[in-house]
Amino acid sequence: MSWRTTRATASPGLAPKRVAVIDLGSNSWRLVLYSYEPGDWWKLTDELHETVRIGAGMGEDDCLQEDAMVRGLETLSVFARFCKASGVAGDDVHAVATSAIREAANQQEFLTRAHRAAPELTVEVLSGEDEARMGYLAAVNSTTLREGAVLEIGGGSLQLIEVSRRRPGDLRSFELGAVRLTERFLPGTGPAGKADLRRLRKFVTKQLSELPWLADRGGRLVGIGGAVRNLASAAALAAQQPDIGVQGFQITRDTLSGLVGELAGMSQAERGRVPGIKPGRGDIVLAAAATIEAVLEFAQVEGIETTEAGLREGVFFERVLLAGREPLFDDVRVAAVRNLAIQYESDLVHVEHVALLSLQLFDSLADQKVFTPTPGERELVWAAAMLHDVGMTISYDDHHKHSRYLILSGGLPGFDPRERALIAQMSRYHRKGDPKLGFLAPMMRDGDQEALERGASLLRVAEHLERGRDQAVHEVRVRRNGDAAALHLRASGDITLPRWSVERYGDAELFERAFGRRLDLD
Amino acid sequence: MSWRTTRATASPGLAPKRVAVIDLGSNSWRLVLYSYEPGDWWKLTDELHETVRIGAGMGEDDCLQEDAMVRGLETLSVFARFCKASGVAGDDVHAVATSAIREAANQQEFLTRAHRAAPELTVEVLSGEDEARMGYLAAVNSTTLREGAVLEIGGGSLQLIEVSRRRPGDLRSFELGAVRLTERFLPGTGPAGKADLRRLRKFVTKQLSELPWLADRGGRLVGIGGAVRNLASAAALAAQQPDIGVQGFQITRDTLSGLVGELAGMSQAERGRVPGIKPGRGDIVLAAAATIEAVLEFAQVEGIETTEAGLREGVFFERVLLAGREPLFDDVRVAAVRNLAIQYESDLVHVEHVALLSLQLFDSLADQKVFTPTPGERELVWAAAMLHDVGMTISYDDHHKHSRYLILSGGLPGFDPRERALIAQMSRYHRKGDPKLGFLAPMMRDGDQEALERGASLLRVAEHLERGRDQAVHEVRVRRNGDAAALHLRASGDITLPRWSVERYGDAELFERAFGRRLDLD
Repeated sequence: MSWRTTRATASPGLAPKRVAVIDLGSNSWRLVLYSYEPGDWWKLTDELHETVRIGAGMGEDDCLQEDAMVRGLETLSVFARFCKASGVAGDDVHAVATSAIREAANQQEFLTRAHRAAPELTVEVLSGEDEARMGYLAAVNSTTLREGAVLEIGGGSLQLIEVSRRRPGDLRSFELGAVRLTERFLPGTGPAGKADLRRLRKFVTKQLSELPWLADRGGRLVGIGGAVRNLASAAALAAQQPDIGVQGFQITRDTLSGLVGELAGMSQAERGRVPGIKPGRGDIVLAAAATIEAVLEFAQVEGIETTEAGLREGVFFERVLLAGREPLFDDVRVAAVRNLAIQYESDLVHVEHVALLSLQLFDSLADQKVFTPTPGERELVWAAAMLHDVGMTISYDDHHKHSRYLILSGGLPGFDPRERALIAQMSRYHRKGDPKLGFLAPMMRDGDQEALERGASLLRVAEHLERGRDQAVHEVRVRRNGDAAALHLRASGDITLPRWSVERYGDAELFERAFGRRLDLD
Repeated sequence: MSWRTTRATASPGLAPKRVAVIDLGSNSWRLVLYSYEPGDWWKLTDELHETVRIGAGMGEDDCLQEDAMVRGLETLSVFARFCKASGVAGDDVHAVATSAIREAANQQEFLTRAHRAAPELTVEVLSGEDEARMGYLAAVNSTTLREGAVLEIGGGSLQLIEVSRRRPGDLRSFELGAVRLTERFLPGTGPAGKADLRRLRKFVTKQLSELPWLADRGGRLVGIGGAVRNLASAAALAAQQPDIGVQGFQITRDTLSGLVGELAGMSQAERGRVPGIKPGRGDIVLAAAATIEAVLEFAQVEGIETTEAGLREGVFFERVLLAGREPLFDDVRVAAVRNLAIQYESDLVHVEHVALLSLQLFDSLADQKVFTPTPGERELVWAAAMLHDVGMTISYDDHHKHSRYLILSGGLPGFDPRERALIAQMSRYHRKGDPKLGFLAPMMRDGDQEALERGASLLRVAEHLERGRDQAVHEVRVRRNGDAAALHLRASGDITLPRWSVERYGDAELFERAFGRRLDLD
């Protein structure tokens, strides 16, 4: 036997579909490659990035400057070469340009030269409303936002979108991007003057007055863009929270004001060295932070929720993954959990059955007042049950620990960091060990330790009821029997294996600690 | 679009083949499920375990005791039920029994009752030589052992196998298992007496005298079995080494003697609480440790190397994965690295090309005396290049960190812990960051930090030469050019992308620090 060369794919199944989305922003340009199977899963599988700053120096005459164009054309030809090498072409390449190119007086010259440099690519210039719509789609497909607003801040423009019942209302784009505002109000490399910041905020607030729906609106605000992600990361690190990614992280207004104050006292170079802020963003991050601060103030909202999705995901969702239907996932959390489960090649029939049995246990224990669920607890148990086995893709040994690692690494749009941490810890403890919040404790609330114990205990019982992975136990209910909780099963055929398995590994001790009752298997 | 239910497989590609191996040992019984594709990859995907102690109390009349048989028959019917639920049957189930059942005077009675309890399973009783051969196969297929010996210690028996040019010489089985020796020499639950331990060692040494080839042999000894793994784990933890698994870990003679002394001073229950020793093994681990100590003394070898493979892998390799040929991997390290790369669905053509370019750089820099490789360094660079992208299976973002996690979790038979740590760190730093040994430093040697920097630098350059994943750059050589190292490329077609990529991300600064020369791309 020879260990032959296999052209394995970078994703589950055989050959997945692939598309490239190219985002020619005012500050940075990015090419991302997505692999996907419509209706099944999607995944970002490669990325090229260049800080082109195509909008640099546009201030005076609204023209793209020659040196910026040269940088852009070189980058475009590299991107085209990458698409060719990757075998992605034609309709599978979506290249979109935003604010700087949209507003440029010499846009046509740039597009002509771009076509010459990379004839394989067709650059589409998004209108301000289209750009805002892509941001909206990214936000509502990666968070549970139903009512509120979306803010997207880039190098050239700021988008604000009204959201009600998950649908977009007013979609607006303003020339209030971080590169633009930095050049206009904060051009120095040293600390920023208070007066300059005041002028910047005033300028922003004045333009916001065009949005009566936003004034004093309150409620939720979801933020998109590298600046929001970096500020969230800086806030999380400053609060000494464990670093599990900023998806769903909320920057409160107070925290943001504190950050603006600190950043203002630093030079541009120092700002780029603040943990969480990327060095290449040090010069424009303050303008972005002050702009967001002005929006929070104007709208009277308590904070901004971070999502890692952005314009590129908006394009991908609308034009590719969800093409041909209203481009909204039916349920963001369900889509996120299933996407992860499928990518890690879980036995979906098995994990869905474990989820079913876990929730039957959960519901009948709650119905009988054995415990009182905390808000949202049921959905976390469901997600943990769906994902408890993802670590098997790494190895059977210690797969519970690997599941935690994969869940924490996976982002799970729709859940905030505390929720992701709880899902991860429930999965971690679905087999053995004494459930503890551990290094994730700093992001937890009162009652979460107990919820973790309950979730881990239910997963153990449900997993062992379904040990044969054959759905032999159809249904489980709990009845109070004196001071015990008695399991009642409906099953088809022989239940030797589930009984043996629950007795050995169902962990009656943990159950008793979590629910205050003896587990009785009859 | 609905997020439909897919019956995804727990492994790459579509439906992999599956077999069950059932090991009816004298102490514990285990069922393991392997998924595999012959000639391509294999993986343990499920496991059931029960401490049956079928050999307990056999001492007096060499008969399996009634209560032990009842425990065994119940376990067997659970295993049969699991196979049925898993859809694994007939020739795909390999059930083998070892020492206790082999030696039992009432073996036939047990087999008859076993057939009645689980008619689907055919229990094969391995001869002592067959048992030894399975251990030998596990050892030579999971380590680089060519000359030396293999030791396998179970509950009932001890196997010793002579190995020369990777082939087995004398294959012997002795009734010196840990359960047997504990019952005979160390029956108390408190600390062990010195005299008892002396008698045990003397008894072992006396039987070893049947093996003239082993006396004062020196050289390498590979150890198999749960006792060896637990002792290695205890030794690694006591030495405060980072816990990355014991595959390839060497327990030195001095360390083992120290452990025997400590364990002897403890009660059985205390032994089971020593970090690294499983609680269920507390009562028999001392007898196993003292037996191994006697073997090291008799053979005059410096230590015992741990492998996580065992009897079950031996059965799987011989009868399934490598059936129909000499059951030896051509090269254990190559097989292990490729197995991991394929499981994590790497683009093999790409990673093999990165490995090729990395080694071309390595060789031409070494040929020109730009650096002097440390022993084994070249193979570690190869392995890191082959595995640098495995983390992509988790997510593109931070895939270099995920690669480290997967490599450390993967075991990588054929490499010792220090080597695995270096491969993992080279992969970790193939994209960015300042290469550091970090938490793995405690297991490193002088010069490893420099080797890590060189390896990481070569991977960065090679990866970006192959950024299009299209093998456009066929060959790279380095020539000294004044104080610079100039890259010379042979390529087909346009090399815009590799040039851009190496200039941006090849990290000339790291290269200069690692090799003391400026990187010159001409």
